[in-house]
Amino acid sequence: MDLATLMENGMDTAQASGLLLNVMWTMVGAVLVYFMQAGFAMCEAGFTRAKNSGNILMKNMLDFVLGSLFFFIFGFAIMHGTDWNGIIGIKGFFNPASLADADGMINGLPVGVFMIFHTVFCATAATIVSGSMAERTKFAAYLAYSAAISIIIYPVSGHWIWGGGFLSQMGFHDFAGSTAVHMVGGLCALVGAKILGPRIGKYTKDGKARAIPGHNLPIAALGVFILWFCWFGFNCGSTTAASTSLGDIAMTTNLAAAAATLMAMCVTWLRYGKPDVSMTFNGALAGLVAITAGCDVVSSWEAIIIGLVAGLVVVFSIEIFDQKIKIDDPVGAVSVHGICGALGTILTGVFGEGCSLGTQITGVASVAAYVLVMAFVIFTIINKTIGLRVSREEETEGLDVHEHGSSAYADFNFRL
Amino acid sequence: MDLATLMENGMDTAQASGLLLNVMWTMVGAVLVYFMQAGFAMCEAGFTRAKNSGNILMKNMLDFVLGSLFFFIFGFAIMHGTDWNGIIGIKGFFNPASLADADGMINGLPVGVFMIFHTVFCATAATIVSGSMAERTKFAAYLAYSAAISIIIYPVSGHWIWGGGFLSQMGFHDFAGSTAVHMVGGLCALVGAKILGPRIGKYTKDGKARAIPGHNLPIAALGVFILWFCWFGFNCGSTTAASTSLGDIAMTTNLAAAAATLMAMCVTWLRYGKPDVSMTFNGALAGLVAITAGCDVVSSWEAIIIGLVAGLVVVFSIEIFDQKIKIDDPVGAVSVHGICGALGTILTGVFGEGCSLGTQITGVASVAAYVLVMAFVIFTIINKTIGLRVSREEETEGLDVHEHGSSAYADFNFRL
Amino acid sequence: MDLATLMENGMDTAQASGLLLNVMWTMVGAVLVYFMQAGFAMCEAGFTRAKNSGNILMKNMLDFVLGSLFFFIFGFAIMHGTDWNGIIGIKGFFNPASLADADGMINGLPVGVFMIFHTVFCATAATIVSGSMAERTKFAAYLAYSAAISIIIYPVSGHWIWGGGFLSQMGFHDFAGSTAVHMVGGLCALVGAKILGPRIGKYTKDGKARAIPGHNLPIAALGVFILWFCWFGFNCGSTTAASTSLGDIAMTTNLAAAAATLMAMCVTWLRYGKPDVSMTFNGALAGLVAITAGCDVVSSWEAIIIGLVAGLVVVFSIEIFDQKIKIDDPVGAVSVHGICGALGTILTGVFGEGCSLGTQITGVASVAAYVLVMAFVIFTIINKTIGLRVSREEETEGLDVHEHGSSAYADFNFRL
Repeated sequence: MDLATLMENGMDTAQASGLLLNVMWTMVGAVLVYFMQAGFAMCEAGFTRAKNSGNILMKNMLDFVLGSLFFFIFGFAIMHGTDWNGIIGIKGFFNPASLADADGMINGLPVGVFMIFHTVFCATAATIVSGSMAERTKFAAYLAYSAAISIIIYPVSGHWIWGGGFLSQMGFHDFAGSTAVHMVGGLCALVGAKILGPRIGKYTKDGKARAIPGHNLPIAALGVFILWFCWFGFNCGSTTAASTSLGDIAMTTNLAAAAATLMAMCVTWLRYGKPDVSMTFNGALAGLVAITAGCDVVSSWEAIIIGLVAGLVVVFSIEIFDQKIKIDDPVGAVSVHGICGALGTILTGVFGEGCSLGTQITGVASVAAYVLVMAFVIFTIINKTIGLRVSREEETEGLDVHEHGSSAYADFNFRL
Repeated sequence: MDLATLMENGMDTAQASGLLLNVMWTMVGAVLVYFMQAGFAMCEAGFTRAKNSGNILMKNMLDFVLGSLFFFIFGFAIMHGTDWNGIIGIKGFFNPASLADADGMINGLPVGVFMIFHTVFCATAATIVSGSMAERTKFAAYLAYSAAISIIIYPVSGHWIWGGGFLSQMGFHDFAGSTAVHMVGGLCALVGAKILGPRIGKYTKDGKARAIPGHNLPIAALGVFILWFCWFGFNCGSTTAASTSLGDIAMTTNLAAAAATLMAMCVTWLRYGKPDVSMTFNGALAGLVAITAGCDVVSSWEAIIIGLVAGLVVVFSIEIFDQKIKIDDPVGAVSVHGICGALGTILTGVFGEGCSLGTQITGVASVAAYVLVMAFVIFTIINKTIGLRVSREEETEGLDVHEHGSSAYADFNFRL
Repeated sequence: MDLATLMENGMDTAQASGLLLNVMWTMVGAVLVYFMQAGFAMCEAGFTRAKNSGNILMKNMLDFVLGSLFFFIFGFAIMHGTDWNGIIGIKGFFNPASLADADGMINGLPVGVFMIFHTVFCATAATIVSGSMAERTKFAAYLAYSAAISIIIYPVSGHWIWGGGFLSQMGFHDFAGSTAVHMVGGLCALVGAKILGPRIGKYTKDGKARAIPGHNLPIAALGVFILWFCWFGFNCGSTTAASTSLGDIAMTTNLAAAAATLMAMCVTWLRYGKPDVSMTFNGALAGLVAITAGCDVVSSWEAIIIGLVAGLVVVFSIEIFDQKIKIDDPVGAVSVHGICGALGTILTGVFGEGCSLGTQITGVASVAAYVLVMAFVIFTIINKTIGLRVSREEETEGLDVHEHGSSAYADFNFRL
């Protein structure tokens, strides 16, 4: 129904106009958030090796595909269905549109608009994991994990935060999903990478980490630019309303990302003697992740501070996971999304107008505990049944040839 | 004129607000549909060989360029000009803005908005063909074809469907162009590829098809992600209005694409023993093409069914053209756009609320007959004059060096 | 504040609706203009050599980062702060939001919306320069230049044109920034490239120019497609209002770009015997740059003429700089942005409704004089302190290894 039709059906000009403004803005947001899939795919392919590129692209495509289907069939009902004790939604399976009211609305939006917006958010959480598990995970096992995060892991904590569950009742503030999306994805990534173990050759016999450089920095950088672009849809779109505050949210988002990028670059310059390319680009993502929770309640300068902290933390976090904890995370997803997601949510409690540090920490802790346990259970089950890891031969020769019978760069010679 | 100016000129708030909402949404759609050019360019370059990359990029760029210019000068008048017997438009040549009414409007939109929206649709049809004719078509010949599709082929059937012609009078339902855009492009692709003949080395002496793998799967995958992204503009934008149904259209579009991707992957897994990368990505496009006709009149579950069928059909269609009919279509454009375009239009007659299967089949058949004949005439004329095909030497050594005097990857060695 | 809240605060439906329509459109524009960063990054990486790809990506990322931060802290106040004698803004440092009125508005938009929109424009000017200085500029020196253009060069002439300065008072017409953004960037690029000197091997001992081909045409072409896409945001977004004229602006933008591409291709075909890939893609950018000043005041046919002239001029300009003036500009940024920016602004005086040729020339001349002097001073200071140019060894072996300790294509062998 366009404006004229809405008015024929009884709305006044202000109601109809307000509704359609909100619909349009939410749609713009949803479409941009969809495109993050391209950003993640390019980042993950570019930061890993040529012999596994086709495989990582397939994983990125398929987690969106399974996410779209399973969130529609199951996840949406769990996240936004009728609340049961603040813990889980229990209505709307197979037919999420049935959750709409008599006017076809849910949370002030037409149900289809609300659904597509939340579908692309769910798929974002799902796709974070492929990077940390890259270059050694069996394709079928990855599909099983993708189904699990979209059906149960993401929707449950999503219900707590955005679906009327206990954290939303407590006043937990996670505007666009530093915790709900990024920390959830990042902690699944952590558990997955831990259970998988490191890639062959990642650690020397005496336990020293070796760098395994990405094979295509231009597409990795493109991925980061795409993600930054789409993040305006992610954060500004999370108003799900046309609002005079959209510019403020874009400013905090942009300044935090800029500050984090600069900080990450400076830290690597000081520590390694040269400004590191991939760490700098990861710094951008760290800033974006960190500002996501509080982008609507912090000032421009506070956003810069959050960005600077995130840019600092992400470098050390990546180093610590890589060299001390010895979890092999090829693209740094655990630090970028998991650690900086938690960090940003907590800093929202420090800086955010009307936010409580205690509530923010409670929210992060409860979601983290839940996700770590669930991810551990699910990855363990997958590992014991399908098996998570490819064979030694397959890993050495590349997943593309063994899992898909093809090469991503058929006309070129490249190192395995 | 912004809202205040429109009201000074006599509109009331509801009229002015409704108009500008529609203008903005249509513009968002148009801009996204423009960006499909990038998607096609990356797909076609990635799925073909390195030695012809510069050439395919030039073809993608130039068909948009010629499409923009010729559709402005001739095509728009034929498609949207004053109707002559339901068959062709006959007014507005050289000055399509003259078709606007006294308020500068056409079909409820400012004429410039309507023009840019239809320009990018025309160019989408044009660009589909380069993929199927890749790696062996003379550049000048391709330019001649591009002019022809934008001047005459696309606008005539476009007039029948969207310009007030006989199919629109019959109630033929092709919401965003499964037939008007994709099948038209796909059938031109079929005729072009057939007349050209297969690439050297595509078939063995005893007629067995050989795979010629694409040289850069990451950019091909990027192309598919870009196309999926832009398809939200293609389908949701085709309301040319801000509407509460935008979310429903996005949901059917997304679910069909997801289902088709999954199905194509599963089929290749079963048939070839491994999930095939390029076929899976083609599955996504097949789903998007198929849902385009009926995305506004089918339910979410019906969209999933349409997607599943398209994902199944596209794999077999590509195989049959490749191995039985022996038409060498390097990127699968004929099956993805031609076959799945027809399929989706017909399935709209099966599932679509208020759509007639008979009318849908009539529409597909008449457009198919028209396009096949026109494309045959035009490609034959080009073949007899300019000549469609490059020399044997040029094809072997690559079109980039011979047609453009350059290499797309000057710093790398690659197989010819 | 959404529509309902705005009305509770005293606006009527028309005011609230008009404001939010303008906010949304300006935000769409800003987000698209941000994404130009990806376009520039891909263009510049693709049109230069593999050994310097990581470096050029870092420069593209960092000029946006520094541009965002420094424009926020200093540049915005200089450009849009309280005017001092038509020359410079002098209020709003460290807190640009303080320039808003009591309702939080500036120039009819919420201050945050206005700020993000102008931030991304400033960063576009900054990023133009990296291409002309590619493959031989010290990273630290480039950062110093980036800071300077965002703090002082761009904001001062920006103040003259868009911030209430003397050119805007004279009626100088530069709708979306052919001069304010592109010529400013292009002339900085000229001065930078001149002071740097040519790359090693660019000229033979007897002074003949040698072509140094780009290493990855697919990503370069992708960059051009991205830029064209984003240019709809650049030009149509510069209304900073939802308006019935958006389609007309998109049409002039698109037709000029198409005409310029076609012309550049034809000229190279005639002169070199083959249609040149990179020159053709540069033709597209030349047309986009040239139409930017007058896209709102010229007709479709006038846009085509402007495009044809730009497509012709850019080819000869690139040749002349390369072969006669002997300024080594690896990507043609000086001609595309500098020359065609000036050209388009002047042609707006020829064709533009209500524009004066004298005023346009005055504007171009005064901005050019200012930028050339300022850029010369700044690059000279940087050159005498940090030093602009890398060592001979570093340039030969590649900036990636020496400046960043990495390779952009770690799994591939490529020529240095």
